[in-house]
Amino acid sequence: MYTQFIGFDWGTSSLRAYLINFDGMIINQYESAHGIMHLPEGGYDEVIAHTLAYFNVPLCPLLACGMVGSAQGFKEASYISCPQSLEKLALNLTKKEFVYKNTINQNTINQNTINQNQTNQDQTHIFHIVAGMSIAHKHSMDVMRGEETQVLGALADLNAIDSAVFILPGTHSKWVLTENKQIINFTTYMTGELFSLLKTHSILGRGMILDQNNSKDSVLAKRAFTQGLDLAQSESGSQASLLHQLFTARTKGLFKEIEALYLEDYLSGILLGSEIQAGLANQKLIKQTQITLIGNQNLCKLYQTALDYFGFKNIQIKENTAPQGLWQIAKINGFI
Amino acid sequence: MYTQFIGFDWGTSSLRAYLINFDGMIINQYESAHGIMHLPEGGYDEVIAHTLAYFNVPLCPLLACGMVGSAQGFKEASYISCPQSLEKLALNLTKKEFVYKNTINQNTINQNTINQNQTNQDQTHIFHIVAGMSIAHKHSMDVMRGEETQVLGALADLNAIDSAVFILPGTHSKWVLTENKQIINFTTYMTGELFSLLKTHSILGRGMILDQNNSKDSVLAKRAFTQGLDLAQSESGSQASLLHQLFTARTKGLFKEIEALYLEDYLSGILLGSEIQAGLANQKLIKQTQITLIGNQNLCKLYQTALDYFGFKNIQIKENTAPQGLWQIAKINGFI
Repeated sequence: MYTQFIGFDWGTSSLRAYLINFDGMIINQYESAHGIMHLPEGGYDEVIAHTLAYFNVPLCPLLACGMVGSAQGFKEASYISCPQSLEKLALNLTKKEFVYKNTINQNTINQNTINQNQTNQDQTHIFHIVAGMSIAHKHSMDVMRGEETQVLGALADLNAIDSAVFILPGTHSKWVLTENKQIINFTTYMTGELFSLLKTHSILGRGMILDQNNSKDSVLAKRAFTQGLDLAQSESGSQASLLHQLFTARTKGLFKEIEALYLEDYLSGILLGSEIQAGLANQKLIKQTQITLIGNQNLCKLYQTALDYFGFKNIQIKENTAPQGLWQIAKINGFI
Repeated sequence: MYTQFIGFDWGTSSLRAYLINFDGMIINQYESAHGIMHLPEGGYDEVIAHTLAYFNVPLCPLLACGMVGSAQGFKEASYISCPQSLEKLALNLTKKEFVYKNTINQNTINQNTINQNQTNQDQTHIFHIVAGMSIAHKHSMDVMRGEETQVLGALADLNAIDSAVFILPGTHSKWVLTENKQIINFTTYMTGELFSLLKTHSILGRGMILDQNNSKDSVLAKRAFTQGLDLAQSESGSQASLLHQLFTARTKGLFKEIEALYLEDYLSGILLGSEIQAGLANQKLIKQTQITLIGNQNLCKLYQTALDYFGFKNIQIKENTAPQGLWQIAKINGFI
C-alpha cells in the first residue's frame, strides 16, 4: 500500500496528471500538450519520466485513463462491455512495462514507501491503463475511453440515486446512463467535431464572422443560439433532417435574419439541439431526471441553457471528475 | 429574333456554355474551370469573351443560370419566391452590361443576324441572368440558383404529369416538387458537402482507406452502402440522430465490421439514407410517384439504388437538363 498515486487523464491532444493521496486529495497536478497524437521523440517513456520528475516523489502506482489505452496509445486496453459494474471496470486494468530513468532528488525519497535499491538507476516499472467501454446498440457498437472514469468519479458524489444521466460534451459528446452505480447505456454524438468542421471548412463558415475578440453581445448570441434550438426542437424527426437544418445557417445569413457574428451561435444551437433532442428521446428522460454535465465550464453552461430551454431544470455541472474516478479505481485495486 | 443563343450554366467551380439553335439543339459546347470562385484576371468579361471566341459566331443573346447570379457573381439576380409559374421565372431576368472585345473571324459573320457596325470594335453587350428561387419554410428560407433552370428543362420532357419530384444530388442536394409545371416546393440537404468534409477532415476519414485506384469490389461496396441505408432507415426520427449515426462509421472500422476500403460507402449510405428518408417524408411521397434524378450519372445511380432500396421504383435519370431549361427561357423571352 502506498500513501499516494499518480493518475493520468491522457487524451488525444493533451495530458493531465495528478498526484493524489489516499484521501482522494489532489496534492499536485501537471499539464502538458503531449497528448497521444503529439508525443515528443522519447515517446510515452519520456512523457512519464517528465511527469514523475515534475512531481519529484518516490515511485508510486501509475494509473491512466483515456486514449492512452487506444490502438494508437501506449498499449491497447480492451473494451469491456456495458452494462457493467464499476468494480469490474476498475479491476480490468491493462499493464504496460516501461523503463524509468530515475531522476528523483534523493532528499525527497520516503524510505517507507520505496526500497533503497530502486533509486539511482534505470528500472522497469508498471503503467496501469483503465479499460474502455463498449456497448452494442441495435445496428453497431459504441465506445468510450476516459469518460467511464469521469462518470465513476462523478457518481461517488451522488448518494442513493438509482438512475442518473451524465453528459460529457465535447468533440465526441457522450450521454451515459447509470443505475445503482452501474453504467447501463451510453451513446456518442459527433456534435463538437461537426461544429468545428462546419465553421472551418464548409460554406456555412464562409458566411460567418467568428468572434475572435470576445466582442459579441451576449443577448444577441443567446437569441441566435435559441433560434437554433427552436429549429432542432420543432423540426425533429425525419421530416426535416439535420442535413437540411444545417443549410439554414446559410440562408439566415443570406437574408440578414441573423448577423454574421451570431451565425456560429445559431449553428451551435442547431447542433446542440439535435443532440439533446436525440439524447432525451434515447434515454427516455423525464423532466425530473438528475442530469450531470461534466467538462469545460463554458460548454457545460451552454448545454445547461439548452437543457433548461427543453424543460430540464435538475442539472448540475462538474468540471473534471477524472481524478476522483482514478482515485476510486486506485482504491478498488488496493494501490492506496 | 436570332437563330441561336448561348446558354451559360455557370456555377461556383466550373462553367459550361452551350450554343443552342432555335430548335433547342446543342450545336457546340464549351467547358472551363472558371467557376465564379476561380475567375481569371480579366474576370467575367474575359471568360465571356473566351467563350464567344470559342464558339466563333456573331453576337447573339447570352443567357446564364447558376451562381453567376449570386451576391458573389457577375450581378446579383433576385430570388423569386416559390410557388412560382415557370413563365414568371423565365421573364424575371437580370441584365448586366459588359464590354465585348470582338475577336470573331469576319468570315463567319452572318449578315442576317448581326449588324456590320457591331463587329471589329469593343462594344457593350447585355448578359442575361436567370433569377434564383426562394421558399419560406416554417423556420427559415431555402434557396436555389441554377437548379430551377434544370428542373424547367426536365419538365419539358414530362407530358401531362400533374405532380413530379426532381432530385438534384450534389454538394447541396435539392428536392424539388412540381405540380402542373409550377415549382411548388423545394428543400436543400447538405449531403455532398458533409460527406466530403467528413472524409477529408474528420476522425471518420482517418479510419478510411479511400479508393484511389478504383480497386474496390462492387459487391462489398454495395453491401457497405446498404448497411448505411439500413441504419438511416431503421433509426430515423429523433431517437438516433445523424450526429450519432455518423460515429458508427468509426466503430464499424474499429471492430472490423467493415473494411477500411468500404467505410466511405457505409458513410455515403448513412448520409444518402438520411437525406432520402427526410425527402420522402417531407414531400409525403407514395411509391408510385415519378422521381427524376438530374446530375452526375454515377451519383444519380447511387441515389437510384438507395431509392429503390427504400421501395421507390419509378425513377428516371437525366444527366444535364440546364441547356433545355435555358432554351425554354430563351424562347419565352423571344430571344430566338
